[in-house]
Amino acid sequence: MGDRYFEDWKVGERLVTSSRTLQEAEIIKFAREYDPQDFHLDPEAAKNSPFGRLVASGWQTTALTMRLIVESGIFGRRGGVGLGVDELRWLKPVYPGDTLHVVAEVESMRANPEKPSGICRFKLTTLNQDDVAVMTHVAIVLVPKRPAAVGA
Amino acid sequence: MGDRYFEDWKVGERLVTSSRTLQEAEIIKFAREYDPQDFHLDPEAAKNSPFGRLVASGWQTTALTMRLIVESGIFGRRGGVGLGVDELRWLKPVYPGDTLHVVAEVESMRANPEKPSGICRFKLTTLNQDDVAVMTHVAIVLVPKRPAAVGA
Repeated sequence: MGDRYFEDWKVGERLVTSSRTLQEAEIIKFAREYDPQDFHLDPEAAKNSPFGRLVASGWQTTALTMRLIVESGIFGRRGGVGLGVDELRWLKPVYPGDTLHVVAEVESMRANPEKPSGICRFKLTTLNQDDVAVMTHVAIVLVPKRPAAVGA
Repeated sequence: MGDRYFEDWKVGERLVTSSRTLQEAEIIKFAREYDPQDFHLDPEAAKNSPFGRLVASGWQTTALTMRLIVESGIFGRRGGVGLGVDELRWLKPVYPGDTLHVVAEVESMRANPEKPSGICRFKLTTLNQDDVAVMTHVAIVLVPKRPAAVGA
């Protein structure tokens, strides 16, 4: 997508990312480092958990969502600086072998005339191979303005 | 902390986790897998970014926060099932070598008499070695009730 600036977005615009499959080994590896709970770590112990089987850490779903978003080129080459997240909801478990993709929609935009960046709120939906939403959140991102437009 | 149930918490209760240092190599490794943007990947290229130097992905800060929380035993042995997150804000960059810890405070609790779990909202603040808050969020967590109390 090359360089993409604040001025290139409009409210309601949608973008669909490519997809990626999360394997059991990756789920366990992430859990060992960042979320060492039985239902993310151990397929046997997970049988006695509320999930009944191994599931990915919700934080791995957020991280993988970020990867798909970055790879899609949504923020252009200069990158997007995340300010925060509102209303993140883990709606359904993510299981080993699930293939995820993300739909991004611009919910609102705020330009600040004195700043070199505007603020976009992206509504992000992460879906599995059955097109079931497993996670939703609103990402609040600082998006650079086109250099000529700074100060305008 | 052993087993810790919904009944063991009260609103306003605080818990401080241990701390962990995030090294440059870990920041780059996480970025390669989950957030491949220059300012997380490449110390040289990061000099020309809004941060002026390499910074950790905000999603790595969330993941490390989760690790510190899990290690603290806050959810007890049975684990806590995350339903979602409200008002996550990345307040300050996290740099290589920063040492983070987390302060958790119970913001509110909702017991559902018919369910084996209650819902706790934890206000989480992630701080660096200078006691500066780098991230805040509210974690909405399903916390198991003491088995005898289910249905009560």
